[in-house]
Amino acid sequence: MSKVKVGVVGTGFIGPAHIEALRRLPNVEVLALCEVTKELAEAKAQQLGIERACTFDELLAMKDIQSVHICTPNFLHFKQAKAVLEAGKHVICEKPLATDVNEAKELVELAAQKGLVNAVHFNLRYYPLVRQIKTMREKGEIGEIYSILGSYLQDWLFYNTDYSWRLEPDKSGDTRAVADIGSHLIDMIEYTSGLKITEVFADFNIIHKIRKKPLKPVETYSGKMLTAEDYADVNINTEDHATILLRFDNGNKGSVTVSQVSAGRKNQLKLEISGSNCTIAFNSEAPNEMWIGRRDGANQLLMRDPALVHGEVRPLITYPGGHNEGFGDTSKQMFKEVYAAIEGGKQPDTPLFPTFADGYRELLIAESILESTKTEKWTKVL
Amino acid sequence: MSKVKVGVVGTGFIGPAHIEALRRLPNVEVLALCEVTKELAEAKAQQLGIERACTFDELLAMKDIQSVHICTPNFLHFKQAKAVLEAGKHVICEKPLATDVNEAKELVELAAQKGLVNAVHFNLRYYPLVRQIKTMREKGEIGEIYSILGSYLQDWLFYNTDYSWRLEPDKSGDTRAVADIGSHLIDMIEYTSGLKITEVFADFNIIHKIRKKPLKPVETYSGKMLTAEDYADVNINTEDHATILLRFDNGNKGSVTVSQVSAGRKNQLKLEISGSNCTIAFNSEAPNEMWIGRRDGANQLLMRDPALVHGEVRPLITYPGGHNEGFGDTSKQMFKEVYAAIEGGKQPDTPLFPTFADGYRELLIAESILESTKTEKWTKVL
Amino acid sequence: MSKVKVGVVGTGFIGPAHIEALRRLPNVEVLALCEVTKELAEAKAQQLGIERACTFDELLAMKDIQSVHICTPNFLHFKQAKAVLEAGKHVICEKPLATDVNEAKELVELAAQKGLVNAVHFNLRYYPLVRQIKTMREKGEIGEIYSILGSYLQDWLFYNTDYSWRLEPDKSGDTRAVADIGSHLIDMIEYTSGLKITEVFADFNIIHKIRKKPLKPVETYSGKMLTAEDYADVNINTEDHATILLRFDNGNKGSVTVSQVSAGRKNQLKLEISGSNCTIAFNSEAPNEMWIGRRDGANQLLMRDPALVHGEVRPLITYPGGHNEGFGDTSKQMFKEVYAAIEGGKQPDTPLFPTFADGYRELLIAESILESTKTEKWTKVL
Amino acid sequence: MSKVKVGVVGTGFIGPAHIEALRRLPNVEVLALCEVTKELAEAKAQQLGIERACTFDELLAMKDIQSVHICTPNFLHFKQAKAVLEAGKHVICEKPLATDVNEAKELVELAAQKGLVNAVHFNLRYYPLVRQIKTMREKGEIGEIYSILGSYLQDWLFYNTDYSWRLEPDKSGDTRAVADIGSHLIDMIEYTSGLKITEVFADFNIIHKIRKKPLKPVETYSGKMLTAEDYADVNINTEDHATILLRFDNGNKGSVTVSQVSAGRKNQLKLEISGSNCTIAFNSEAPNEMWIGRRDGANQLLMRDPALVHGEVRPLITYPGGHNEGFGDTSKQMFKEVYAAIEGGKQPDTPLFPTFADGYRELLIAESILESTKTEKWTKVL
Repeated sequence: MSKVKVGVVGTGFIGPAHIEALRRLPNVEVLALCEVTKELAEAKAQQLGIERACTFDELLAMKDIQSVHICTPNFLHFKQAKAVLEAGKHVICEKPLATDVNEAKELVELAAQKGLVNAVHFNLRYYPLVRQIKTMREKGEIGEIYSILGSYLQDWLFYNTDYSWRLEPDKSGDTRAVADIGSHLIDMIEYTSGLKITEVFADFNIIHKIRKKPLKPVETYSGKMLTAEDYADVNINTEDHATILLRFDNGNKGSVTVSQVSAGRKNQLKLEISGSNCTIAFNSEAPNEMWIGRRDGANQLLMRDPALVHGEVRPLITYPGGHNEGFGDTSKQMFKEVYAAIEGGKQPDTPLFPTFADGYRELLIAESILESTKTEKWTKVL
Repeated sequence: MSKVKVGVVGTGFIGPAHIEALRRLPNVEVLALCEVTKELAEAKAQQLGIERACTFDELLAMKDIQSVHICTPNFLHFKQAKAVLEAGKHVICEKPLATDVNEAKELVELAAQKGLVNAVHFNLRYYPLVRQIKTMREKGEIGEIYSILGSYLQDWLFYNTDYSWRLEPDKSGDTRAVADIGSHLIDMIEYTSGLKITEVFADFNIIHKIRKKPLKPVETYSGKMLTAEDYADVNINTEDHATILLRFDNGNKGSVTVSQVSAGRKNQLKLEISGSNCTIAFNSEAPNEMWIGRRDGANQLLMRDPALVHGEVRPLITYPGGHNEGFGDTSKQMFKEVYAAIEGGKQPDTPLFPTFADGYRELLIAESILESTKTEKWTKVL
Repeated sequence: MSKVKVGVVGTGFIGPAHIEALRRLPNVEVLALCEVTKELAEAKAQQLGIERACTFDELLAMKDIQSVHICTPNFLHFKQAKAVLEAGKHVICEKPLATDVNEAKELVELAAQKGLVNAVHFNLRYYPLVRQIKTMREKGEIGEIYSILGSYLQDWLFYNTDYSWRLEPDKSGDTRAVADIGSHLIDMIEYTSGLKITEVFADFNIIHKIRKKPLKPVETYSGKMLTAEDYADVNINTEDHATILLRFDNGNKGSVTVSQVSAGRKNQLKLEISGSNCTIAFNSEAPNEMWIGRRDGANQLLMRDPALVHGEVRPLITYPGGHNEGFGDTSKQMFKEVYAAIEGGKQPDTPLFPTFADGYRELLIAESILESTKTEKWTKVL
Repeated sequence: MSKVKVGVVGTGFIGPAHIEALRRLPNVEVLALCEVTKELAEAKAQQLGIERACTFDELLAMKDIQSVHICTPNFLHFKQAKAVLEAGKHVICEKPLATDVNEAKELVELAAQKGLVNAVHFNLRYYPLVRQIKTMREKGEIGEIYSILGSYLQDWLFYNTDYSWRLEPDKSGDTRAVADIGSHLIDMIEYTSGLKITEVFADFNIIHKIRKKPLKPVETYSGKMLTAEDYADVNINTEDHATILLRFDNGNKGSVTVSQVSAGRKNQLKLEISGSNCTIAFNSEAPNEMWIGRRDGANQLLMRDPALVHGEVRPLITYPGGHNEGFGDTSKQMFKEVYAAIEGGKQPDTPLFPTFADGYRELLIAESILESTKTEKWTKVL
């Protein structure tokens, strides 16, 4: 039994999530782990139970490694994805695909030219009920889409003492809440609705204009109070909160609100699509059930149950209804589709999974959003 | 035992709601009912169990009537409220106070000059938990307000065959969804948060640009299908859906979405206020419980229970926790406060209830909203 | 316009609730208020805005009073209801109808003989969605009933310092949680399901076997701490908590749990009926929506919306969907049906409202429940 | 890097769930798969990506296999678990541990004598918030437990055409709903509350006394209608529905209801524990949040967030709050603790995971429950 051999780059929050998701697939083997130094790679490989530890260049040189997952901070995505493609390997890149639109475009073109499988980890598409929304829309069950209302709220940056590399534009890019979480929501809106956003108007807000950056590694201090001299004041230039007005190519409208400073909202993506047949409401904090609103009859609660969803959705579900599935399962389901393509040896003509083209589009929209906050004018998405 | 004697003008949806709410108060007697003709007034008075039936002029002439409730279509509010004040009677007017800002301003001035009690029926303020939010904010329990997210969604105008005088600008005014339901939400935002909206930016959408107006009275046909020739096509100029970006006087931001074409949302006002201490979420379709979000501990569900709310809120609650109160109870609680003032004989210096000044402010904000949709620019609220 | 003239006896928690509900009806006038002394009656009548204050004997003697509401402690219900019937007046009695089965039977017979309208205030039947359940069952939409699961949980007797006359068997009867709240739930089960309970098996528990009875009136002390010497220890003989197994006349089964010591459950009645077509779940703390469970499709949330319920239910609804109705509205709706009968002058052949016969049945079932806890055997309901 | 080598027996619903959960652990390798025939084993091993395919005897003979997971129908558990222990391997057995109490007792003794790690797959204990309930109780945060109310409702046997080996006592045992799902709930009750059940009283119901057993393999027919001649009528002797009254060793009481014929309830375990400090409510269909009821303040919703739970619970959580975890994650977390013990080489003195002793206790309680339904008397749990 031969399995696809995989290397993973990066062991922050999301790298181990990729590894665990990959291991759940019968046809994939995570063989190599890459970190900034060989020593760190070895320590992490030991801890995560992975055979080989390596640097990025060593990974590129491994002939038997067929695909690479890029799970590093944003500013490295472009450079590493390009190198992986040039090494002739398939690539699964964390979002955002790059920190600059032109780089993203270059990656789309390079991947196309190479014919290699390319994917961006918009894993939230893989909540089974998200595909159910897409499928219902394709079958006309939602009807003409009248309006879309979305929000993505978190509280992990609630205090001015909350700090992360994501707060630093040189590592993370020029937008933050919009790029980190807004991108997931906007991708989900275009994916489920089939509409294209044509124009945006946005207003950003920085709640904590100065944050306190720990001067010592935070892990060291876990469980202890940092004292005043352990922090440096850092000016913050990226948004904690944003609302974006959307205009769609069917002439109708919507809006999206994102915040990383909303106490009690841990990681809540909400999407509400109103159409001429029904309204659909999905909440990522309760992803096993979705609400369907009706004018002429009882509203509905559709459970994530293989017996109740459309046939197109069933392959994304492992367990019967009532046996909840969650965040970790989304990556497993996405990689199942990606590795079916990898076993086929090349990018499918119409892949089910999110590709570099989707990653590029995300950056294009984010750029228009940022532009509109500066001009205070409606801005076209080209 | 002497009771305050009251006249009510108008018997559409909201007139009978006023009458029933008033009857629940021990110190008030609904003595007179006014309609467009004496005949209609008599029929309705009989049906609603009210002693006197009259025309508007007859009502104004009744010496023993101390206060008048104006429950007519919007375009009559100004004229009638003015006449009532000039007749020396206290006045409780349905919202909007007028269809024009200047008329509203005139009413504020006239009422002040007369010293008479004046109120606008922003009854949704009187969900007890709405006052709890206001009180928590006053006590600093929410902290600095970071952002506000609101929506008010309905489906009663979902089909292009749904028709009402509210669709006609000459009867209802130049905005519709914003004036009808957005006004309640915006009033609630300023009331609970204590913030003032300084600038707005809005985008409107008319989903049904043509609606089918029944040519025969709809009651006649209830239960029957109207046929094609029973309708006339009418061009619609007021919004079915709107999103409004808000900037507040504390420098922070928010947004509001309203729709009257969202299937399954019958009458759902949602308000979420995020502050530096906690987030508060309220939903008018489940008004007996509110959510309090916290970063450092469990979130909370506060029930509408006299034992659990602040003392300032307790007078608005009739029953113990778990004995639900609803929409009808809001008007009762509002009128309880209004009639305490009427028994005092004049408008209090700092009334708890919404006044003509609040009605005027609503029109001022709506005007700026409408203006911004035309200029596509941020518009100041003067 | 002539209105039915009504007297109300008792001004504890529920008397004023009756009065307020009655006032909302156009065809009823609350004319007289009765209390244990003339002085108390006068004070309360003044406060509640009622014209006449009287003693019970004076009330019976008032010729123009057509109906009487009995809102006194349980041990007085039998005596007073009997006297009202003998005085030739219609009677609406609080539950339980009596504290003894034989007395209840006597009242049923006396009322029948007199032909007077008789009702027991099982107001919870009048949540519109409760009638929707009954109507769906009558139309076969639930199918054969497989099982019923109910609970009624409160926390108002949670502490051993919580005290009320309801804890004293001579005033309240030999069961407490079962009589106070279990009776509502069991009535609702038979009412909605159309099934008869044939056998019961129960287990009771007294959590606080000794409670602390305040030696001074509690009102005096509101806001103050009672000290140790202000209490007397009282042995408690009635149940804080009970579970009752039920067998129905269709051969199937169910259970009911009641508790008055469940922290955080203020007044939560839950009823879940599983049938061969669907399952219905209702929760009195969220009475404007009910859940319908399905095997082969999405579950449903039916809102209390006049446009969505069966025609039989519509008369119980005042406001459109999304405008919540609550506890206070149940009594109004019940009295609307009772006073339609009173205007007809006699008890209808098949009244929609709960009658003395229903009150009698409640006591019969409660007696069997109590018996089964003593014998620890299945006990037939005769 | 050396991993523990594991064999898995059985590939029905739960075997693949074990395999996938095991693969997520860095220190475990699923090396061998056993089925009734070598051919089936090979087909399944290929499909599931497992290196070795084998029969049960071959598995026992594999020296390098250190532990075995028994995922076969109930009637095989005893025989196979015994053989695994005698082969000197650690064993993780699906529940129920046996179909007979004495066999279970024998296994407990054999495992103790061998010193081998033994576990029963009561995975539902491993919802992180279930351990939070246990930990809160241990710390006294719930207080004295007043009452427990549980239910476990499913609809997968709703129709009389639903069929499974679980309906046949010779394969599954003498109780069904109680053994299949009641056992999970009862185990969770004793685990979280720390109470022991001392007496039970139960009532069973068989809704479908005759079921239609497909005469041809159902898989063959998937998507097709079976016709009348494709079924045989089978008498059913095990319960579809049961309610069980419980008495605990602290003198207080509770109840449990189970059903496999409740339409719309896919797999809903609900547990509500009322104590002298608070009430806890958990619902397995929404396992990322639990409700905490309070008498004197707002109720709470505690999210499954590593930052919010007790330290004892944190190791069971992989992702931050708001990133849902589900059913599949419970087995992973359980096996993490089991394999920490296996790496230690022997059963810990006080294992955190459910052991053969817990499996034995489950059978003991089920036996008393069954007995009580026959005698219709309270039955002691010995």
